[in-house]
Amino acid sequence: MRALLEKIAAEGEVVAGGVLKVDRFLNHQVDPRLMKRIGEEFANQFRGERPTKVLTLESSGISPALMTAYELAVPLVVARKRRPLTMTGEVYRAEVYSFTKQEANEIVVSRSLLDGFDRVLIIDDFLANGQAALGMVEVVRQAGAAVVGIGIVIEKAFQDGGRLLRSRGLRVVSLARIASLADGVIRFHEEVMNG
Amino acid sequence: MRALLEKIAAEGEVVAGGVLKVDRFLNHQVDPRLMKRIGEEFANQFRGERPTKVLTLESSGISPALMTAYELAVPLVVARKRRPLTMTGEVYRAEVYSFTKQEANEIVVSRSLLDGFDRVLIIDDFLANGQAALGMVEVVRQAGAAVVGIGIVIEKAFQDGGRLLRSRGLRVVSLARIASLADGVIRFHEEVMNG
Repeated sequence: MRALLEKIAAEGEVVAGGVLKVDRFLNHQVDPRLMKRIGEEFANQFRGERPTKVLTLESSGISPALMTAYELAVPLVVARKRRPLTMTGEVYRAEVYSFTKQEANEIVVSRSLLDGFDRVLIIDDFLANGQAALGMVEVVRQAGAAVVGIGIVIEKAFQDGGRLLRSRGLRVVSLARIASLADGVIRFHEEVMNG
Repeated sequence: MRALLEKIAAEGEVVAGGVLKVDRFLNHQVDPRLMKRIGEEFANQFRGERPTKVLTLESSGISPALMTAYELAVPLVVARKRRPLTMTGEVYRAEVYSFTKQEANEIVVSRSLLDGFDRVLIIDDFLANGQAALGMVEVVRQAGAAVVGIGIVIEKAFQDGGRLLRSRGLRVVSLARIASLADGVIRFHEEVMNG
């Protein structure tokens, strides 16, 4: 998605430890018009799969996922990182290990929000090691529902997540694929640059 | 806002301790079409104040705030409850006490995202004791920016937050005002029901 690649090239920043900082348009500050275009793109890519729900993980996944759900006219379900006081009923739960923070966290979704008839489109802002996406896939599996695809705003194609998910037969669409952040330079994956 | 009141009446649930659970359309599961209408309503209410940024607090504020920012064509800034690894620069910070969880949390916003020229519209999902809103007002004050208004999806009008904010001269617009949750029954504030 050219508008996204241009935004990453212009405003993305590589900080210590090879972390890509996109604070100015994707998570800490959010560009709503860009999110709208991202939502339209995911909706176009996955509409044929007839998703009944969009699932994301709080909190940076919410903006692109909300715009996607809006375009598809289906509800958005937000997996929680800690169980809120109001979440009183039974839940699906999965463990997500963060390599960056070196800690395991549980994600939870109320059982009342997903069932065996759902066709779930998973949306997230980043794909690196794939642990968050795998946690959401596990939640959908527990519900007996189907994962119809995974939409990622920025994939770090030099990490294992994309391969891991695709090797399980999951369809992953990434709007920007980063080939390398070595030496503090953002290099995109060629097929995306030409696409 | 009639569509919102109807949704609260139909799907809201009063759980133990007088907590209003709106998990099915506002936070855990989100209704994107309703969020769009909420965003349009806030934009109509505050457009005349010429806001330059919308500010909210992760994570349940993000959906209504994103749609508001989209309508106003301004960036959304998301105050963080814990400082992410990528937030490397200087920050504005404020303490927010939660009466529900009985704990104090810090909220942070990168200094690069707000400055003295900004006119900030604060959006949040709930207003009860007003502590989260006051924390955001404090962040805006530290930036030397102006708060042009506060838009709230659901105000618990039987708690102190609304009075506290309005007594400081802040313009607060609440799309639904709950007068009481006593005996597990949701009662709306009359002026809203008639409005």
